[in-house]
Amino acid sequence: MRFDEAYSGNVFIGSHPNYEESSVVIYGMPMDWTVSYRPGSRFGPARIREVSIGLEEYSPYLDRELKEIRYFDAGDIPLPFGNAERSLKIIEEYIDQLLADGKSPLGMGGEHLVSWPVIKSVYKRYPNLAVIHMDAHTDLRTDYEGEPLSHATPIRKVAELIGPENVFSFGIRSGMKEEFQWAKENGMYIAKFEVLEPLKEILPRLKGRPVYVTIDIDVLDPAHAPGTGTVDCGGITSKELLASILEISRSEVQVVGADLVEVAPVYDHSEQTANTASKLIREMLLGWF
Amino acid sequence: MRFDEAYSGNVFIGSHPNYEESSVVIYGMPMDWTVSYRPGSRFGPARIREVSIGLEEYSPYLDRELKEIRYFDAGDIPLPFGNAERSLKIIEEYIDQLLADGKSPLGMGGEHLVSWPVIKSVYKRYPNLAVIHMDAHTDLRTDYEGEPLSHATPIRKVAELIGPENVFSFGIRSGMKEEFQWAKENGMYIAKFEVLEPLKEILPRLKGRPVYVTIDIDVLDPAHAPGTGTVDCGGITSKELLASILEISRSEVQVVGADLVEVAPVYDHSEQTANTASKLIREMLLGWF
Amino acid sequence: MRFDEAYSGNVFIGSHPNYEESSVVIYGMPMDWTVSYRPGSRFGPARIREVSIGLEEYSPYLDRELKEIRYFDAGDIPLPFGNAERSLKIIEEYIDQLLADGKSPLGMGGEHLVSWPVIKSVYKRYPNLAVIHMDAHTDLRTDYEGEPLSHATPIRKVAELIGPENVFSFGIRSGMKEEFQWAKENGMYIAKFEVLEPLKEILPRLKGRPVYVTIDIDVLDPAHAPGTGTVDCGGITSKELLASILEISRSEVQVVGADLVEVAPVYDHSEQTANTASKLIREMLLGWF
Amino acid sequence: MRFDEAYSGNVFIGSHPNYEESSVVIYGMPMDWTVSYRPGSRFGPARIREVSIGLEEYSPYLDRELKEIRYFDAGDIPLPFGNAERSLKIIEEYIDQLLADGKSPLGMGGEHLVSWPVIKSVYKRYPNLAVIHMDAHTDLRTDYEGEPLSHATPIRKVAELIGPENVFSFGIRSGMKEEFQWAKENGMYIAKFEVLEPLKEILPRLKGRPVYVTIDIDVLDPAHAPGTGTVDCGGITSKELLASILEISRSEVQVVGADLVEVAPVYDHSEQTANTASKLIREMLLGWF
Amino acid sequence: MRFDEAYSGNVFIGSHPNYEESSVVIYGMPMDWTVSYRPGSRFGPARIREVSIGLEEYSPYLDRELKEIRYFDAGDIPLPFGNAERSLKIIEEYIDQLLADGKSPLGMGGEHLVSWPVIKSVYKRYPNLAVIHMDAHTDLRTDYEGEPLSHATPIRKVAELIGPENVFSFGIRSGMKEEFQWAKENGMYIAKFEVLEPLKEILPRLKGRPVYVTIDIDVLDPAHAPGTGTVDCGGITSKELLASILEISRSEVQVVGADLVEVAPVYDHSEQTANTASKLIREMLLGWF
Amino acid sequence: MRFDEAYSGNVFIGSHPNYEESSVVIYGMPMDWTVSYRPGSRFGPARIREVSIGLEEYSPYLDRELKEIRYFDAGDIPLPFGNAERSLKIIEEYIDQLLADGKSPLGMGGEHLVSWPVIKSVYKRYPNLAVIHMDAHTDLRTDYEGEPLSHATPIRKVAELIGPENVFSFGIRSGMKEEFQWAKENGMYIAKFEVLEPLKEILPRLKGRPVYVTIDIDVLDPAHAPGTGTVDCGGITSKELLASILEISRSEVQVVGADLVEVAPVYDHSEQTANTASKLIREMLLGWF
Repeated sequence: MRFDEAYSGNVFIGSHPNYEESSVVIYGMPMDWTVSYRPGSRFGPARIREVSIGLEEYSPYLDRELKEIRYFDAGDIPLPFGNAERSLKIIEEYIDQLLADGKSPLGMGGEHLVSWPVIKSVYKRYPNLAVIHMDAHTDLRTDYEGEPLSHATPIRKVAELIGPENVFSFGIRSGMKEEFQWAKENGMYIAKFEVLEPLKEILPRLKGRPVYVTIDIDVLDPAHAPGTGTVDCGGITSKELLASILEISRSEVQVVGADLVEVAPVYDHSEQTANTASKLIREMLLGWF
Repeated sequence: MRFDEAYSGNVFIGSHPNYEESSVVIYGMPMDWTVSYRPGSRFGPARIREVSIGLEEYSPYLDRELKEIRYFDAGDIPLPFGNAERSLKIIEEYIDQLLADGKSPLGMGGEHLVSWPVIKSVYKRYPNLAVIHMDAHTDLRTDYEGEPLSHATPIRKVAELIGPENVFSFGIRSGMKEEFQWAKENGMYIAKFEVLEPLKEILPRLKGRPVYVTIDIDVLDPAHAPGTGTVDCGGITSKELLASILEISRSEVQVVGADLVEVAPVYDHSEQTANTASKLIREMLLGWF
Repeated sequence: MRFDEAYSGNVFIGSHPNYEESSVVIYGMPMDWTVSYRPGSRFGPARIREVSIGLEEYSPYLDRELKEIRYFDAGDIPLPFGNAERSLKIIEEYIDQLLADGKSPLGMGGEHLVSWPVIKSVYKRYPNLAVIHMDAHTDLRTDYEGEPLSHATPIRKVAELIGPENVFSFGIRSGMKEEFQWAKENGMYIAKFEVLEPLKEILPRLKGRPVYVTIDIDVLDPAHAPGTGTVDCGGITSKELLASILEISRSEVQVVGADLVEVAPVYDHSEQTANTASKLIREMLLGWF
Repeated sequence: MRFDEAYSGNVFIGSHPNYEESSVVIYGMPMDWTVSYRPGSRFGPARIREVSIGLEEYSPYLDRELKEIRYFDAGDIPLPFGNAERSLKIIEEYIDQLLADGKSPLGMGGEHLVSWPVIKSVYKRYPNLAVIHMDAHTDLRTDYEGEPLSHATPIRKVAELIGPENVFSFGIRSGMKEEFQWAKENGMYIAKFEVLEPLKEILPRLKGRPVYVTIDIDVLDPAHAPGTGTVDCGGITSKELLASILEISRSEVQVVGADLVEVAPVYDHSEQTANTASKLIREMLLGWF
Repeated sequence: MRFDEAYSGNVFIGSHPNYEESSVVIYGMPMDWTVSYRPGSRFGPARIREVSIGLEEYSPYLDRELKEIRYFDAGDIPLPFGNAERSLKIIEEYIDQLLADGKSPLGMGGEHLVSWPVIKSVYKRYPNLAVIHMDAHTDLRTDYEGEPLSHATPIRKVAELIGPENVFSFGIRSGMKEEFQWAKENGMYIAKFEVLEPLKEILPRLKGRPVYVTIDIDVLDPAHAPGTGTVDCGGITSKELLASILEISRSEVQVVGADLVEVAPVYDHSEQTANTASKLIREMLLGWF
Repeated sequence: MRFDEAYSGNVFIGSHPNYEESSVVIYGMPMDWTVSYRPGSRFGPARIREVSIGLEEYSPYLDRELKEIRYFDAGDIPLPFGNAERSLKIIEEYIDQLLADGKSPLGMGGEHLVSWPVIKSVYKRYPNLAVIHMDAHTDLRTDYEGEPLSHATPIRKVAELIGPENVFSFGIRSGMKEEFQWAKENGMYIAKFEVLEPLKEILPRLKGRPVYVTIDIDVLDPAHAPGTGTVDCGGITSKELLASILEISRSEVQVVGADLVEVAPVYDHSEQTANTASKLIREMLLGWF
């Protein structure tokens, strides 16, 4: 991990050339080896950066420009193919250092399991942490066919670490019966199907608290995000997701870290999903940090 | 490792291995030879089965699991390529036998003309039958360029058989002027553009009646179902279609058969439409039978 | 320019064979050389015509058929590749002649810059002209990296010609801060994000005035129009755009010309965007002329 | 059938506007309803015409230009969807008239069954006819699952009509054992796998005879023609097919008709196959007529 | 219509329903988690089976039909996502049992690493084993960025197990300098770029020996196999690969097992690669067992 | 133009971080605005760099590694969209400076017109320059529909500048009759259809001379390079092109500059063409400089 040198690949538009002078750090976590269905999200961060060149630097939603904040795109974290355990360890250490340096982490996946070591690291600094989770899936399994390190388990791990009452899921439309039951029995909040309206109810309850926000791009309907591993109909529109990001911006929570995961370019035939992800990253940057 | 049993191959997820013990039978009708525009729906049933492996067996919409009902996936009905007349005859006899065996039919198309022999067969058992039809198109032509066996004619045939007052179309946004006029003059119900709200009005009127539901996937907007023969904008979302299926589940009609037609994989670049169809089939299974 | 002979290529469905007897003229402007991102809209008009064959000639929205009006498809205007200045001059002269012959122009792009010479020509005939502009982008730049003839500038040129107070933009969700400021300071109307509701407010104010309507297909969300140069999430649905076209039909403005631009077939994997454009052209024809 | 008026759609590049003054007539046969695998060739002729606009009018192979011959593109023959029998009858009558008018027929498919009525018609005029057949498949079945009108049967029908000893197949790499046996036992020539070398041997034997040439685009390897119904590896290159066409040009046979079939645009992702077909049609036009 | 038997679903065409009575067993190894570039080959076996339905059962290359041999398609081996070590162990035990039952193994990948446990198992039975390896890549690394279980290492492991002098690689066109050097220094045979001619030289030297043949589909040029993880130009044609399979059939080696790996459907836009793989499997079945 | 700072985007694999210490400079020329058919090559250089990450750094063709030479990837030259004249001027000045700094230029297109200013600049330094041109097209027009700055004219301009007897074209299979005639009458060498064999004849004649090599990727058959603007069948294989590059390496000409143009990612569905281009760039780097 060397943040003192320029990343040799593509960078997100408007990225500052200097790590030290930046307050937010963007990084990719190109891992997709535990997914049970369609792999490919390892190439998500690179494509999001590539298409960011077509993005306006001004947000008419927030009336703010990218030049108003300083962020550094540190590139993709090098991860060992096919070795989930080592990959997660590397990510955790990476975030530990970012936080030690006083940076806010903004990650791009990769599969959803990458959020687990990030939140673990963030929780060490913020014991009062709450997690806002937008997703089509509960991700509350203890294991997937015997394997505890699986893309289907990160939110369960998080809930067990920080307490289920501190995890708030939105837009959920798929999962096993047992997952929904576990959430209910353990006081974890799940808003089925919808994001914006339930978020408006929950945000005031989190006032003043440090919050980590993890967004699985498949919270969007496949019409709005075909380029992802699991295309599950009945999701929300990109307009609703933009409004939800804005809602968080306007709230009184303190976002201390965030990620956007599961963009898989190979299924994204007109680059619609990558472009959407790149706009969402802009809004997250401008609204939350 | 058990080599002593047949490979379970390509069947809809959760399908029961035994026909006799099942109450619902799923079957494919791989016919697309009378379509006037883009063919390809013959491969719809196979692809819907293939992607069903990615489906959760639990529905958070209905709070019900696939294991709670017994259904048998009988595979595709073998149909003679390019011979519409013989194909329809084969389908009708197939359904006759299903019904004689006390099974509920749940079909996958194929082009919409396949619904015609199914409904004919169902009507023989249920003379009080009503038909709920969700589609972008009226399908009320008497013929298509002189040909009475066409994908543009099935609802007309149905209406003439069971009486236009027993046919209820929803979501219609395309058709000839004469088709809309014929419906109006003959007392057939057509809800233009919308499905959910008009359905809520109609369902109470059908209370207690046997109902056959036929869904053309193109009732969805192309954003939600690009993988179909005719992509006609201005349709409903998958969220609205899921809600409509749920509405029927909650109503007091008796669903005695159903189908989902016109999924054409070759235009379905991220397999979004096949995945949507597979989830719709799950909801139909869980909610209606 | 010879309107006295039949166009040898594809024509829009239902096109009248004779120029003289037609009141509306459809034409393509196959130019895409000033775009800064993804080119390809030069093939838009040809593909829209090609798929129009799958279109019903009757509109259930307007209860009107194509045979009720006379329009002539004049084919694509031949434009010199890579020479923006000459191309715009050719388009302006073309429209001058159309108007001199008493025809209403209905153009298909091509990049958005093609609207500029058309509106210039129309303004010569209608000094009281107002312009309704539906788009994801402001298009209000004075230049693009030093180049005043750019796809990012047409609305600015129009506003400076006919007065910013006569330009009404709808659905805008991207632009530079300076563009929004210029509009505000100069009294130009911009409805951010939405089209239908603000349109309902504005139309009564334009009562009786001659109006030119220019629609960039990217006013639609990428879910509804992936086949365009810039895919920018957060847009409206095709249902909303159809309703907006209908709203103009019902209003008391006098549409004296219109265009639909930026359809780029190469990114349009299931031909969804071309089919949508072809239906929109039908509604514009039936509702506005 | 009206040859006295201009075709309103796309035409093949360089097509003469007048039927009477032309010696060759190009026409499409948009039928694909008897195929057993992937349909879609109904759109082949339209796409071949569309991309022909990118074609040079000069052939460096033959040192000849399109303007040196007169051909008329009559458009697609209107055929009834899903009705094979009527379609074949319409095609036969169409060719009867072409020949009666002294025109040389050059057809574009569509599935291979369309060649059958064409050759039947040509044979009535040329009882000494020989047929050169380039294909991946024998097409020698008597029926396909009981159906005698199938894409798998045309060469068998031809062989039974004009005598198996007058049919010469090249490039064959797939078929049933019985088909190869029937050919062998009945004196029909089959060159397995290769085209050019065996053609060089056969052509001198056909010296002076009237010959009909039917080319299934799948004689090419899928690398060279992915856009077809059946992709069967082990085929020849486009270079070899061009050389084979040239070889016939240089021979002393008299080509009295020809076709190119089975181009299916929906599987042709970079339009490679359509472009290849369009160049092949140019070479056939320039070299054979 | 027989509802009393299981639906035959997705098995390789012509597969025997009974394991005990079969001499060859086909199985899939759906693993792709150690690949360093494009994942997706986990879906290869399923797609190869699906398209095999379009295959003729007769080979004109070998003049033999599938019904002449008995093979059982055992489906895909269930493997734990993302856990390479356990996956390889499961595969090895699977093959151990197959061999104990006297069956010949014919595997479909999945990534190339799956060949390693298979060959390990086969070697236990045949200590005199030679391996024929056709591939674009050497696959001779000791590890990939520190990971010894990688898609880049299987042939190295094999060579170290059975002796480098017993491994014969063909068609190699990519690798590290060190890999080529290791082969050279250790007496392992590598034919660069070509397959057929060097194979003709080597086969007589292997006369009478038990041979395992492993084919990475990327030995084909990307023109012939775009649907694979690594597209590396300069490869052989499918015609040459078919001829090479035939050459082995005609030789006096005893094929005791074989596999075909690295077919990745998501990059295979016209299903060309899957169809090719399915034909290759047919030829391997008919020619080698 | 600032070569003294690191390029902020993707770089070609193995690129040296320092301009001063490098002897070869790689640069992109992202221009496609004068093409008459399919645009998109502006994105070629970026995609070639992106996929170069999958490339081995060792060439088994040349037995040489990338680390043996020093090259600097300077990124894409910023060019004004739609302004051909200014773009060409910028490119020429850029190359002037490269040459003044003693660097060898290795360019990536973009459309073929970009080669014109490069060769103009190189010719100023090497008055004895010969040009080797591999292409499907003659590119010898004086203008394209009146426009002298067109993708169809660069070789004509070059031939007029350096003398037609110093230009050697290979693989040509398309062009106007007049272009071939002009070449013949003016002593310019054209090898029709083939590259390798004629190259072997010509290279000895160029012994000791400075040579610029320009390769249009469409000299490859579309089977080998679908991702380009014009797909023209009958081309050479990638194996032949690799052998041709090697032939030049082994010859006694002095390569003083080179380019590879016309890679258009949007038509390159499995990234086959970009991967091929990236391997060709490696071979050019290793073999020529």
